[in-house]
Amino acid sequence: MLSATESDRVQVVLVNSRNPLNIGAAARAMSNFGFPHLRVVHPYPVAFREAKSAVDAEPVLAAAEEFEQLHEAVADCSLVVGTTAGSRRDLEEPLSSLEAAASIIRTRLRSGSRVAILFGSEKVGLSNHDLSHCQLLLRIPTRSDHSSMNLGQAVAIVMYELIRQTAPEATNETPAAAPDPPLATAGEKERLITLLLEALSINGYPHRTTPATIEAKVRRLVRHLALTPSDLHHWLGLLRQLLWKLRATQRPPQE
Amino acid sequence: MLSATESDRVQVVLVNSRNPLNIGAAARAMSNFGFPHLRVVHPYPVAFREAKSAVDAEPVLAAAEEFEQLHEAVADCSLVVGTTAGSRRDLEEPLSSLEAAASIIRTRLRSGSRVAILFGSEKVGLSNHDLSHCQLLLRIPTRSDHSSMNLGQAVAIVMYELIRQTAPEATNETPAAAPDPPLATAGEKERLITLLLEALSINGYPHRTTPATIEAKVRRLVRHLALTPSDLHHWLGLLRQLLWKLRATQRPPQE
Repeated sequence: MLSATESDRVQVVLVNSRNPLNIGAAARAMSNFGFPHLRVVHPYPVAFREAKSAVDAEPVLAAAEEFEQLHEAVADCSLVVGTTAGSRRDLEEPLSSLEAAASIIRTRLRSGSRVAILFGSEKVGLSNHDLSHCQLLLRIPTRSDHSSMNLGQAVAIVMYELIRQTAPEATNETPAAAPDPPLATAGEKERLITLLLEALSINGYPHRTTPATIEAKVRRLVRHLALTPSDLHHWLGLLRQLLWKLRATQRPPQE
Repeated sequence: MLSATESDRVQVVLVNSRNPLNIGAAARAMSNFGFPHLRVVHPYPVAFREAKSAVDAEPVLAAAEEFEQLHEAVADCSLVVGTTAGSRRDLEEPLSSLEAAASIIRTRLRSGSRVAILFGSEKVGLSNHDLSHCQLLLRIPTRSDHSSMNLGQAVAIVMYELIRQTAPEATNETPAAAPDPPLATAGEKERLITLLLEALSINGYPHRTTPATIEAKVRRLVRHLALTPSDLHHWLGLLRQLLWKLRATQRPPQE
């Protein structure tokens, strides 16, 4: 987790992005995770300026700064990080995992440094010239058969990893640890829900309840059950017995 | 990190997505991280089918399955996970952090379970009805002032978190295993057993069963249930309703 001051020290730098829609998507993801500063190097100028000045432009996009050259865009940053997806064999620098790089970036932000994070164009990524500006290269772990990421998605993942809360407080929100045996599927549990609802509907519902509230309640309760298929089978059997008896209450009295 | 077999057990389910471009973006992110199975519930049919059958369609999209109803799309999954961004105050269930949820999901995938991960529409997210199908809700940690995420970006972040390689050096950041929530005691469960046995005894047992075998079976089944005190309380309430109806079958016919 980063403080607002720390997030404020991050400069996201899009290099040679050609599509204003992707620049807008990157700006939106930055806003989602609290990073206000976007710099754009050598975009298609007309399209970029139109997108930037649109009435409904994302504030991050509206405030974006434009540079002609990469070295100008990173001039005030003391750590410059290049991003790549998949594996590149042409790199001189070793690649860090996104996680390891994010940890380094957070440390530098905490110590007061300004950090630039570079994203290349959709087609070719960062050039070797762009990478020559970087002290650290990070890799988003896409699979080798399909490594090329959408620009907005790549920015979203890096922003997420920067603020990811490895939180002690997450523990008390965590639901019960998953049980080991294979469990009944949602479809199998649906049968239990159906039988229970039929049983409860016979002879009507209690005062001030409706079928919808009962259904929501039963669904929630059954969903919480961690049943093996075998136990589910036995519960269905018991419920069928009860249902058989309940149906008798609907019959007209024997003469 | 997941094996191909484990990734194969994940079903990404897009509910009420309206924009085929976003469905395509979600499919691309899935492909980047090695998740092949996409299900789409109630999309705009014409636009979806056109996008799916396009010559250059992403293979994940081309193979996507379409369903009319959510319960059909999750019927074969034993864990159903809902996703939300930001904070929602209208939820009955506690929200897990994405990290904690991903850890639970990986455990379930390793044990052979099939897991559905639901994403709602761009505008309104998952409805309360959609969430009623979920056993686990996860939250992507966007900031409260701008919590609404682009669908493709949300899918990308969740896929990334599922395969994220927790580096050895990250272990000291890793939250401790979650403590189990307090569960109903054996004594509280005994009340459930008592009510069930009374319900089953009314009007006699099925042929060739005895009170002792029924009691052993019921006790074993109830013992297997990991119920919170609150859920136990609700189950007792439902059972009392059934019992009240069943007792009516014992009364002599009204004249």
